[in-house]
Amino acid sequence: MTKAEKTRQFIIEKTAPVFNKNGYAGTSIADLTEVTGLTKGSIYGNFENKDAVAVAAFEYNHAKISGLVAAKVAESKSAVGKLKAYTIAFGELYKNPTLQYGCPILNTAIEADDTHPQLRAKVVKAIDNWYDGIEAIIKEGQQNKEIKKKLNTREFAGAFIAVIEGGVMLWKVTGKTEGLQAALKHALVMIAEIKR
Amino acid sequence: MTKAEKTRQFIIEKTAPVFNKNGYAGTSIADLTEVTGLTKGSIYGNFENKDAVAVAAFEYNHAKISGLVAAKVAESKSAVGKLKAYTIAFGELYKNPTLQYGCPILNTAIEADDTHPQLRAKVVKAIDNWYDGIEAIIKEGQQNKEIKKKLNTREFAGAFIAVIEGGVMLWKVTGKTEGLQAALKHALVMIAEIKR
Repeated sequence: MTKAEKTRQFIIEKTAPVFNKNGYAGTSIADLTEVTGLTKGSIYGNFENKDAVAVAAFEYNHAKISGLVAAKVAESKSAVGKLKAYTIAFGELYKNPTLQYGCPILNTAIEADDTHPQLRAKVVKAIDNWYDGIEAIIKEGQQNKEIKKKLNTREFAGAFIAVIEGGVMLWKVTGKTEGLQAALKHALVMIAEIKR
Repeated sequence: MTKAEKTRQFIIEKTAPVFNKNGYAGTSIADLTEVTGLTKGSIYGNFENKDAVAVAAFEYNHAKISGLVAAKVAESKSAVGKLKAYTIAFGELYKNPTLQYGCPILNTAIEADDTHPQLRAKVVKAIDNWYDGIEAIIKEGQQNKEIKKKLNTREFAGAFIAVIEGGVMLWKVTGKTEGLQAALKHALVMIAEIKR
């Protein structure tokens, strides 16, 4: 990496947890200079504007959660085990320095839906990928006869994502894991119900 | 109402949709003066600060969604019908001038969880009430033999709230109802599964 690339990466890594905690509108330029120890000029020498930092931070945070899920999924060979891996990963967000502030997809979705088309488009892409990942696992499970053939995979994926993300919301706002645990337990019931 | 009370109510009604759309950090004093047509002095003559307007706006928005749900619940005499009423109400948020910007509980939860203790406490109270409402309906259904006796009502309520709110997130960020419809359809499956 060049020095400029290193600085850019440093800014992303330092600001990503701040954006996930405070949101886009809740993160000021002062927050960015404080957490990086850099001047405003240095930050804007590397990024066009706050939008550009926010988008890069979202991509970094999204990679964090995708990586966490992918690592859990990789531990399992069965399709059912891979679906269960999502519930394990989302039960462990609190352990991660960035993801302790919640799921970046959920956080950014709620803030950007009516206010920030550029971030919103990034989240929609992330959700599309999530749907694709779940549907691919289900298809694999149908092929190897773990999972029922007769199943609307798209609807399953939508409800599965919804219950997980709703659970994350309950955890974050209450500060207790009860609601998230209930949601993840239900996600396991959903998986059990599509097993052959 | 006194003139001061009327002005206060006017400010709440006008700013409530703005807070639900933009969030707390995303709503500026300029937004408040613009939407009300009042001066900053007039707004702060009626509210101590932006926090006080935001809290009153959240309570107003929460009353809107509670009222929508209560109206749908009141249309049904059976406990199962009352649970289904939640899915009907959340499928109709888009029709409401304020709730078209999403569920205020979800929106405020996501923003306030790590940043705004006062708003966060209001949301936690709203979620507690929501749990209580669902658990009361289930108890009623157990007493009149509509709903299975053997059931963890608290866990059911948590997963039920999660799937609905996750569905609202999918609707708002994608701009399409597909994910919300899948989530609400699944909530109906959850209700069918606890029927006797």
